Amino acid sequence: MPDYDPNASEHQSWVPVDPESDFPIQNLPFGIFEKPGRGVRPGVRIGDTVLDLAELKLAEGNTLNGLASCAREIRRRVSWLLNAANSELRDDAALQSRSLLPIAAVETRLPFGIGDYIDFYSSLEHATNVGKMFRDPANPLLPNWRHLPVGYHGKAGTVILGDRDIRRPHGQLSKDNQTSVVGPSRRLDFELEVGFFLNRSTALGESIPVASAEEAIFGLVLLNDWSARDIQRWEYQPLGPFLSKSFATSITPWVIPLDALAPFRVAGPAQDPPVLPYLQQQGARNLNIELEVWLQPLGETAPMCICRTNFSGMYWSVAQQVAHLTSNGASVRTGDLCGSGTISGSEPDSFGSLLELTWNGARPIHYPGGAERTFLEDGDRVIIKGACVGAHRIGFGDLSARVLPA
Amino acid sequence: MPDYDPNASEHQSWVPVDPESDFPIQNLPFGIFEKPGRGVRPGVRIGDTVLDLAELKLAEGNTLNGLASCAREIRRRVSWLLNAANSELRDDAALQSRSLLPIAAVETRLPFGIGDYIDFYSSLEHATNVGKMFRDPANPLLPNWRHLPVGYHGKAGTVILGDRDIRRPHGQLSKDNQTSVVGPSRRLDFELEVGFFLNRSTALGESIPVASAEEAIFGLVLLNDWSARDIQRWEYQPLGPFLSKSFATSITPWVIPLDALAPFRVAGPAQDPPVLPYLQQQGARNLNIELEVWLQPLGETAPMCICRTNFSGMYWSVAQQVAHLTSNGASVRTGDLCGSGTISGSEPDSFGSLLELTWNGARPIHYPGGAERTFLEDGDRVIIKGACVGAHRIGFGDLSARVLPA
Repeated sequence: MPDYDPNASEHQSWVPVDPESDFPIQNLPFGIFEKPGRGVRPGVRIGDTVLDLAELKLAEGNTLNGLASCAREIRRRVSWLLNAANSELRDDAALQSRSLLPIAAVETRLPFGIGDYIDFYSSLEHATNVGKMFRDPANPLLPNWRHLPVGYHGKAGTVILGDRDIRRPHGQLSKDNQTSVVGPSRRLDFELEVGFFLNRSTALGESIPVASAEEAIFGLVLLNDWSARDIQRWEYQPLGPFLSKSFATSITPWVIPLDALAPFRVAGPAQDPPVLPYLQQQGARNLNIELEVWLQPLGETAPMCICRTNFSGMYWSVAQQVAHLTSNGASVRTGDLCGSGTISGSEPDSFGSLLELTWNGARPIHYPGGAERTFLEDGDRVIIKGACVGAHRIGFGDLSARVLPA
Repeated sequence: MPDYDPNASEHQSWVPVDPESDFPIQNLPFGIFEKPGRGVRPGVRIGDTVLDLAELKLAEGNTLNGLASCAREIRRRVSWLLNAANSELRDDAALQSRSLLPIAAVETRLPFGIGDYIDFYSSLEHATNVGKMFRDPANPLLPNWRHLPVGYHGKAGTVILGDRDIRRPHGQLSKDNQTSVVGPSRRLDFELEVGFFLNRSTALGESIPVASAEEAIFGLVLLNDWSARDIQRWEYQPLGPFLSKSFATSITPWVIPLDALAPFRVAGPAQDPPVLPYLQQQGARNLNIELEVWLQPLGETAPMCICRTNFSGMYWSVAQQVAHLTSNGASVRTGDLCGSGTISGSEPDSFGSLLELTWNGARPIHYPGGAERTFLEDGDRVIIKGACVGAHRIGFGDLSARVLPA
């Protein structure tokens, strides 16, 4: 299969895949799953079926860290194995019965052993909205923002799978910015983000140039950077967010290979002023991923879409983030996770957090059943969806979790 | 040995220990070492000798994570094994030849697999100095500072052993706070800190109460939180320090069990206003650890002590840091590392960074050989020392590294 391209839209699989599925043969995301009696294994998802990579002797291990460096080859091999034109596995009922599992029969696990988790702040519209609300409406963007992808380190140990419900955190809250009380956060929020995992480790002192930075990215997930706005406001000066974010960060379990997103490249916004040479990236640097947030308040019969936006509008690209992250010689490790920062568009219904959608609580969201929301209440369900849509569809699956009482 | 107390000052070991050593039988720090042909193993240090815990079948593994939960019992057993009053190992030449190694024959390794690295900001004097320099000399402390131990997440992947030299980092530097250039940091600094490792993992949603927080601490190390002040100044708003700190954080290889520091408890400063109930700690909450920083500029024949301070003056204690860290329900993992933040006293020669010692470069340090320092220059060596001194001495060993050119 010398010229085989796993991204070709004409490929069909002999595994049944719903035409609306997020996971056609062109996607083939990697994940870690457990099946009682079979242990924890790496797999690839197609439609509502999981291919057991250990059973096929294509990979092993209870994280994706070990296979990250050869994921491209494995995806190509798996694509051909699942291709309707190839009889190898298609006509081997015994091997199929060992290596294919219905998605409902497995439990997903965290895909990677995560070394460091870094969160960026790369949406111009989000940074502008926050600056307008909390600093200077006339001059909302800090002077450094257009010169470097602002980021900070988050807590790797509380990155969890998206289907785990979220306990409302306690913390210090201050009304007067002088004294504080302890209590459950009253301004719990989501943040719509895309995350990516690194596929290699570097040595201390080594930088990854922007031109090859995408080669260091394994793939992408949807990410919800849960945030307690009231805790954040009191604690974050001068060293940044801490307990307001560290209680949980949710990700989707199936990691979409960056290769699968190649057909959905787009230019991204102009960068003005020009960025420094180490951040200058040639070609289409962004990805056209349609994103939605749905919120179902407790008591409402259905979720409502409260945000529609697109990853293509991000000011700083994933490659620029990787180049910046390593520009000081800091080493990275396979499984390091980077978040994009909240993804907001320019329209009021394209903002990626309740903070922005309700303008810090001033503009509640109204539901047909009577519910009104500024921030998240106990029992609310947040659902984040993402997909690339073109000649075929590459989706991420739903990131869906409920808020539990403190 | 029902009433055996490893901390008793009268204990003597049959292993020769210099009277000035940091590592008498009352200390017994844990570490990980490698010896060619023997692999990577856990050990305990006494004087200039390493006891191989694997050879004695007391522990195994290539990190301390696995033995953390039973370190107290192992330390008690090791203390008795090394006690001059006990013949077991003292009179077993064969077992001694297998289990004892001269320190010069081994290479130390990182003691723990570090999950998350959290850095606090718990010295009132340090926070005040920084506030005076960069914010408001009349009102240097932010309103939240006396209410919670301010902290942030750092990069776990670049925590390294103290004897590794440090490459000066590149980064974005700004003179006018509007535009920037890329170049080697010109304001490279050390930060004198004490770090501690956690000895247990908690579940998401679980908090560690301040009263039992010390039980969750394995032990302490010296920590140098290398900082590029010029990179930091441009990048750190609004989400905190990132690349200005992430290039390296150095620690000593031998982790002093918190138990060994029990004889050196002291009250710590009064906390005014009173702290919230979840941070209220009974009894002597601080540790009397004498700390020094020595700096040897390239070309000078000897290092000079440029800072003498004490860990006892810290406003927030290690127990309060652990309680705060978990107060939002964030889980922790064995091997998580916390730094105290820069440790500064009230006198100008007790400040724990060059930023403070030279008052942001305005007051250079002069050397007998003619060298003058504001920030670190290539070839400079920074040596941090720490010890508890009383009826016996518990020391940390030197944290000593040189600055390499960018």
